[in-house]
Amino acid sequence: MNALLTAEDFASARRRVAPAIHRTPLLSFRTLGRESGTRPHLKCENLQKTGSFKVRGALNAIASLGPAERARGVITVSAGNHAQAVAWAAGRAGARAVVVMPERASRTKVAAAEAYGAQVVLHGDASEAFAEAHRRTAAEDLVFLHPFDAPEVVAGHGSTGLEIAEDVPGPGVIVVPVGGGGQIAGIAGALAGAGRLAGGSRMRVFGVEPVGAPSMRRSLDEGRAARLDRTETIADGLAPPMAGELAYRYVAGHVEDVVLVSDDEILAAMRLLATRAKLVAEPSGAAAVAALMCGRVPVRAGETVVAVVTGGNVDGGMMARALREGTPWP
Amino acid sequence: MNALLTAEDFASARRRVAPAIHRTPLLSFRTLGRESGTRPHLKCENLQKTGSFKVRGALNAIASLGPAERARGVITVSAGNHAQAVAWAAGRAGARAVVVMPERASRTKVAAAEAYGAQVVLHGDASEAFAEAHRRTAAEDLVFLHPFDAPEVVAGHGSTGLEIAEDVPGPGVIVVPVGGGGQIAGIAGALAGAGRLAGGSRMRVFGVEPVGAPSMRRSLDEGRAARLDRTETIADGLAPPMAGELAYRYVAGHVEDVVLVSDDEILAAMRLLATRAKLVAEPSGAAAVAALMCGRVPVRAGETVVAVVTGGNVDGGMMARALREGTPWP
Repeated sequence: MNALLTAEDFASARRRVAPAIHRTPLLSFRTLGRESGTRPHLKCENLQKTGSFKVRGALNAIASLGPAERARGVITVSAGNHAQAVAWAAGRAGARAVVVMPERASRTKVAAAEAYGAQVVLHGDASEAFAEAHRRTAAEDLVFLHPFDAPEVVAGHGSTGLEIAEDVPGPGVIVVPVGGGGQIAGIAGALAGAGRLAGGSRMRVFGVEPVGAPSMRRSLDEGRAARLDRTETIADGLAPPMAGELAYRYVAGHVEDVVLVSDDEILAAMRLLATRAKLVAEPSGAAAVAALMCGRVPVRAGETVVAVVTGGNVDGGMMARALREGTPWP
Repeated sequence: MNALLTAEDFASARRRVAPAIHRTPLLSFRTLGRESGTRPHLKCENLQKTGSFKVRGALNAIASLGPAERARGVITVSAGNHAQAVAWAAGRAGARAVVVMPERASRTKVAAAEAYGAQVVLHGDASEAFAEAHRRTAAEDLVFLHPFDAPEVVAGHGSTGLEIAEDVPGPGVIVVPVGGGGQIAGIAGALAGAGRLAGGSRMRVFGVEPVGAPSMRRSLDEGRAARLDRTETIADGLAPPMAGELAYRYVAGHVEDVVLVSDDEILAAMRLLATRAKLVAEPSGAAAVAALMCGRVPVRAGETVVAVVTGGNVDGGMMARALREGTPWP
């Protein structure tokens, strides 16, 4: 596989986004290692600006636009976190932002995107929202920002991987929730560029998808970026109807495996994060922890393991449900 | 006022506890400054070992024991967080720990203290639990560790103040929840020792108590450490039946003021922390944020303001209640 992004692409994206975002803490979370004997950590992107990692990609994508494109304004499609991130990043750049969200999008995310200044359009399901965004891109002469399958977005997300690599100088495992795959592509790509997927300080990267939205798992099985007819999961951020083409190439080339978790396992992970790590994670944000709780990632005793907690934008009702219904662990 | 603890006492306590605890993150939390024009931050002691700041004092107190005292074992009384902290710190030192908790103590906290290896005794209300701890101290020849009114405990808690002082080099405000007063005494005392309560980098320290447990507020009004006949608040950690004698002296000498918040205001703060800061705080841990939300602390536009989020050990039911009943803000 030829890397589409170079180490310098990742490094310059990081320089571009770092001044505007939080270098989120990497917190140790021993509870999770009691059974596996590992040294687990949480990369807290739920504590990131706008409540999710998505600002990293959105900020880099908007910073990469020319003045004429910025003047036209941008449009994107998102279940919510990328919508908020684009709204926030566009607001900083003084650009108009339109975000198309599925009709069933989280009310918290809709309200937040509007609060950051975006024009929100609610339209259909995830596939129909994509189609509506493409229609409006042409009709309103806007610049389309793909939520995950664009080099600038992947490069921006790589900054998470570079921060982890600095905080974990030795070998280890990084577990990343996968929706369209932009973040795991960025993390794996940046680590590949930095020489951290080989040698004595080798990091192994694993992806996690919901059982009800396994686009990247299916892509690996079929040997090409797959499209799903329907998705069904509480992890709204992991349920785009397709895997990204670019993301698939990075995952196929640089990621060890993609494993699946159920919605019940995600609820249990949300509960564990709230009660033991004192962190609020949205369902998507808890998927990596769920996979580790369930022993689905082949970690080894003594290993440093980093679960990326990708976001914390969850309706109060869903959080209360996790506290009520999530299976206590262990 | 003669300081009972010197700058060196605080510095050596910090050296003693730092290797075993987290240097908790200081996170910016702009939401809280939208109306006041301040630059608010959260000192995240809910992310501390055992889920609260209490390990700082407990660890220093147990480290200060001689071998013979350690061999006898320790006993303390606590609504829960100090119990967990002593259980954890005693476990590290190989010492037996007995903790007396009020019968209505949070089940989460009881279970956690037991999981850390302590023998838990449930007894009466807060006052009766104190009496029972004193009775057992004599009967079982244990070493009594006061939950807040001991120099070693206050010195250990000072480490929070020293960390904040490093992270906020300029002037600012620190807002601290007050139960018996051990933590605010430690923070104010350590800052006084470091010369940070005067001059160009002056920090002003404010305390916050629940309306239903105003022991320090009453102490200031009466001019001596006060005892309360009864307390009534959801903030169990802020409801000991008296203010500490030592704590009162530090508060009277070094703290600007102690303000009050209602349980409803605390629930609203818990909700705000969960939905916007993505942090789980227990009621006691949200009190400083509640005071700032309600404009009860006289902050000034442009000022750096640090709210100490003291703990995150909350039953799932109480957290769900805050998400359901907490008044949305703003």
